[in-house]
Amino acid sequence: MTALDGFMRQQVGQFEPEIRDMAAYCLDTTGKRLRPTMVFICGWSGEGIVVEELVRAAGVVEMVHLATLVHDDIMDRAEIRRNRRTAARQFGPDAAVLLGDALFSQALHIASHFPTTEVCRLVSESTRKVCSGEIMQTLRRRDTNISLDEYRRMIDLKTAELFRVSCFLGASLSGHPLGFAQAADRFGHHLGIAYQIYDDLVDFLGEETQIGKTLGTDLATGKLTLPLMLLLEKVTAVEHATIVSALHSGQSLGLAASKQRMQELGVVAGVIQVMEAELAVATRALDSHGSLAPVPLMRQLVTMLQVKVTSLSAPKVS
Amino acid sequence: MTALDGFMRQQVGQFEPEIRDMAAYCLDTTGKRLRPTMVFICGWSGEGIVVEELVRAAGVVEMVHLATLVHDDIMDRAEIRRNRRTAARQFGPDAAVLLGDALFSQALHIASHFPTTEVCRLVSESTRKVCSGEIMQTLRRRDTNISLDEYRRMIDLKTAELFRVSCFLGASLSGHPLGFAQAADRFGHHLGIAYQIYDDLVDFLGEETQIGKTLGTDLATGKLTLPLMLLLEKVTAVEHATIVSALHSGQSLGLAASKQRMQELGVVAGVIQVMEAELAVATRALDSHGSLAPVPLMRQLVTMLQVKVTSLSAPKVS
Repeated sequence: MTALDGFMRQQVGQFEPEIRDMAAYCLDTTGKRLRPTMVFICGWSGEGIVVEELVRAAGVVEMVHLATLVHDDIMDRAEIRRNRRTAARQFGPDAAVLLGDALFSQALHIASHFPTTEVCRLVSESTRKVCSGEIMQTLRRRDTNISLDEYRRMIDLKTAELFRVSCFLGASLSGHPLGFAQAADRFGHHLGIAYQIYDDLVDFLGEETQIGKTLGTDLATGKLTLPLMLLLEKVTAVEHATIVSALHSGQSLGLAASKQRMQELGVVAGVIQVMEAELAVATRALDSHGSLAPVPLMRQLVTMLQVKVTSLSAPKVS
Repeated sequence: MTALDGFMRQQVGQFEPEIRDMAAYCLDTTGKRLRPTMVFICGWSGEGIVVEELVRAAGVVEMVHLATLVHDDIMDRAEIRRNRRTAARQFGPDAAVLLGDALFSQALHIASHFPTTEVCRLVSESTRKVCSGEIMQTLRRRDTNISLDEYRRMIDLKTAELFRVSCFLGASLSGHPLGFAQAADRFGHHLGIAYQIYDDLVDFLGEETQIGKTLGTDLATGKLTLPLMLLLEKVTAVEHATIVSALHSGQSLGLAASKQRMQELGVVAGVIQVMEAELAVATRALDSHGSLAPVPLMRQLVTMLQVKVTSLSAPKVS
């Protein structure tokens, strides 16, 4: 990760002087950096071994991700991300559109410095899929008739896709056998779905001070996510009508009330169950590769997500 | 161009089914397609010879350009482009942000199908520069203290850059000598600057019905372009104050009045002079390559632009 820090700092200098400060603002290093983590973990060869190609691939996927965040925050009208102003709030939405574009371009530019076109090909396709997933979600805002399959398709594209590519690139660029790279691909895909489900739950149950971004935006922007879908299945007819009407009109549902109802009705447990099923599939993908160095770390990633979701759903002690 | 039509139609099928109609809307084939034209002209080998790599490169630069248009129209709040609704107006600005991103990604994805990473590398860098130029322009809206050098730097990045790459790719992918590809690069750069100056003049002098897009947006969005810069130099102190104040406040200057003043004060002639100087440099770049097949066509491009600007500045017969 230190190598990635250095790489990202160095990338700032690649942008035109006039927009360097803005690029630096977006390329901050305080995020969770999940995708780089996955590149490094799936490409793990042993303590202290820094594979330069992995650092570069980690830089590519992180920069694509940061670009999507810049654009997401415009659409969600989010003001805070990682405990500071979003780029849209800091520079205005118009500049933020272009700044996201510049980050996308630079990510692909880094990708073009590998010996073959493979990284460019995988990352550009993945980026298109991420955007397609986001478009679907945007077009179906305030739509309460989304099936579980459609929800899954959307998070598959918007989140799991880049997780998948991160894992595949990590495994393949570090010279692990192709069979393992394919397993890492499958692992990343299901881990990504599980992670997005977790993230959708955070939007309902998290504490802003702890998470460091504006929460409740899914509700505010009328995004129907799994927690809300399960809630709608379980509430009374009257509550159902209230929620649907609030979603259509863009009114607040009252976040606290929803939280409590979600626990009472077993919605939180239901969401966690779906997430756990994905994690089980992710873990199974590694079954025949247990002897490889990355596998114990990949299993740890799964455990970490399980711990996070447990602490999220536990009642707060005040 | 027929081959490009086919290629672009086929590209629509590469987008996720859920966003295919939207992609098709943006990939319409009624535009001027200047950048593909430059690829084809600079790669010209003779009548009837279709180089598949040129078609693909033309598709890449056109798709990058269409993506920037989708994003530009969001920022300019433009409603009409090519005589129909802009993507921002048709699908809403949020979806248009993402749709532009998907087009960018797909453009780079096509670029990744060349045998080497060169096209990816050139196009991604060029795209970043285009975005940087647009960011500068966006940040300096309503700023009336922009120097001619700064204006030139902005149009160099936002327009000339992609013209330059289009010419370079056309020349180099069709197997012309490197010396000519470098000359084409220089030609494209200066032609691009001249073209943007022409386009900035169109925004003042053009007729919407003829041009097919919302005009006067530079004034409305407070963009200081060459025509306005020269106008500010030549008007009376009182007019100067009025224009500056209108630009700051975002008020309309009264398009017709401005047009007339521009002719009277010789602003139009001044703009054309700057444009002609760029075209002269572009033409000189071709001097030692006169025997190559593309050169007569490249010179014709210059003549066509000269004809267009002349007809634009001629008084209308009603």
